[in-house]
Amino acid sequence: MKNNIRIILVNPSHPGNIGAAARAMKNMGLSCLYLVQPEKFPHPEAVYRASRADDVVRNARVVATLDDALVGCTHVFGTSARDREMSAEVLDVREMVTMIMQQPQKTKIAIVFGREKHGLYNDELRRCQYQVKIPTVADYSSLNLGAAVQVIAYELYVAQGGARQADQPKIDPATADEMEGLYQHLEKIATQVDFLKPDKPRKMMPRFRQIFNRARLDKEDVNLIRGLLAKIYRKLK
Amino acid sequence: MKNNIRIILVNPSHPGNIGAAARAMKNMGLSCLYLVQPEKFPHPEAVYRASRADDVVRNARVVATLDDALVGCTHVFGTSARDREMSAEVLDVREMVTMIMQQPQKTKIAIVFGREKHGLYNDELRRCQYQVKIPTVADYSSLNLGAAVQVIAYELYVAQGGARQADQPKIDPATADEMEGLYQHLEKIATQVDFLKPDKPRKMMPRFRQIFNRARLDKEDVNLIRGLLAKIYRKLK
Repeated sequence: MKNNIRIILVNPSHPGNIGAAARAMKNMGLSCLYLVQPEKFPHPEAVYRASRADDVVRNARVVATLDDALVGCTHVFGTSARDREMSAEVLDVREMVTMIMQQPQKTKIAIVFGREKHGLYNDELRRCQYQVKIPTVADYSSLNLGAAVQVIAYELYVAQGGARQADQPKIDPATADEMEGLYQHLEKIATQVDFLKPDKPRKMMPRFRQIFNRARLDKEDVNLIRGLLAKIYRKLK
Repeated sequence: MKNNIRIILVNPSHPGNIGAAARAMKNMGLSCLYLVQPEKFPHPEAVYRASRADDVVRNARVVATLDDALVGCTHVFGTSARDREMSAEVLDVREMVTMIMQQPQKTKIAIVFGREKHGLYNDELRRCQYQVKIPTVADYSSLNLGAAVQVIAYELYVAQGGARQADQPKIDPATADEMEGLYQHLEKIATQVDFLKPDKPRKMMPRFRQIFNRARLDKEDVNLIRGLLAKIYRKLK
């Protein structure tokens, strides 16, 4: 299952942290690392801090946007210590791991980590179906990036020691890119009927994201909704 | 209980790791750090990497021998990935934490970490009643020192009931009749654009019910969706 779990670092500023994350992953049997616009990469410090996990660093995929990193993933977990307005369902690490263990082997899972200083921005966290919190004391909740990856990789590894539940849900979950397609379609229709005003978008799209994240749409659901939207579009013309 | 747990680093060579360990401790409510013959300390890199845990670094006690660091402790756990001849009882992290939780509050506990390159020497590990292993893959078992402290500090914190601080936002769920209103509204629009054919309804509405049931809509969600539907209706006329 380990190849199905993608660790995504968004805009990491310190190459040392990339190396530390790679090492933490390899210790726990993970190898799939995505970097969204790293500030300095490739960089010798990343290789040095990775120690014997330099292969994970060298095989890291560098992409331009979080959406690029999420392509194909059906389960997206965003790590954040802060509570957000309009946020996704909040889980602690062990709850996340329990949920992951219940998925079929091939389920593509993304775990997203934000910038060292500022974490994930709201629009990034809205692309995640779940917000994951690492339990900490209340007044100092910000872990080092590599340390955060270590805790989560460790929990994943320990959880695999137990039996994985075998029963496969018969659903074929929508991928992150399919979901983005749905949101764009919905946004277009909402704009067309003047429900969404581009200069005053308010919270409409974030709220729809929340709703459909909670609903965990499968491919057929997306097709159904987009089918309705397409019909509406044709009638409006 | 946290003051009763002493984190002891033996001969750390990189001051950055001292800082990382301090930060990992503070995130999880630990503050008592001992350094046995650190190679470079005090050092600005230790303070820098500690981030807001610089107080833990500044309050660290520097001692000459492991024995000095262990004075007063009744439970001594030595971390090591390697199996040793004549070693102490071996526990994994969770077993150690369970054991610690069973002790009275005032029990003085030491958790000992070895050198970055060579870990604990045999004579040091013999001073420990228990050897603690962090579970890892077989062929890459050496964690970064700060990462090892982070995993153990995290497990201690979670065992104390630190998890689950994240409560779900207080939503105001939609009532059954509000949901029925939504479904009727949706059905009307879908019929109007010929997406739903009354003589051949197929599974459209049951499927939308499934989706919105899973999404657990609140009143605001229902208003949002119905607002969009109302706008579409007006444009269609």
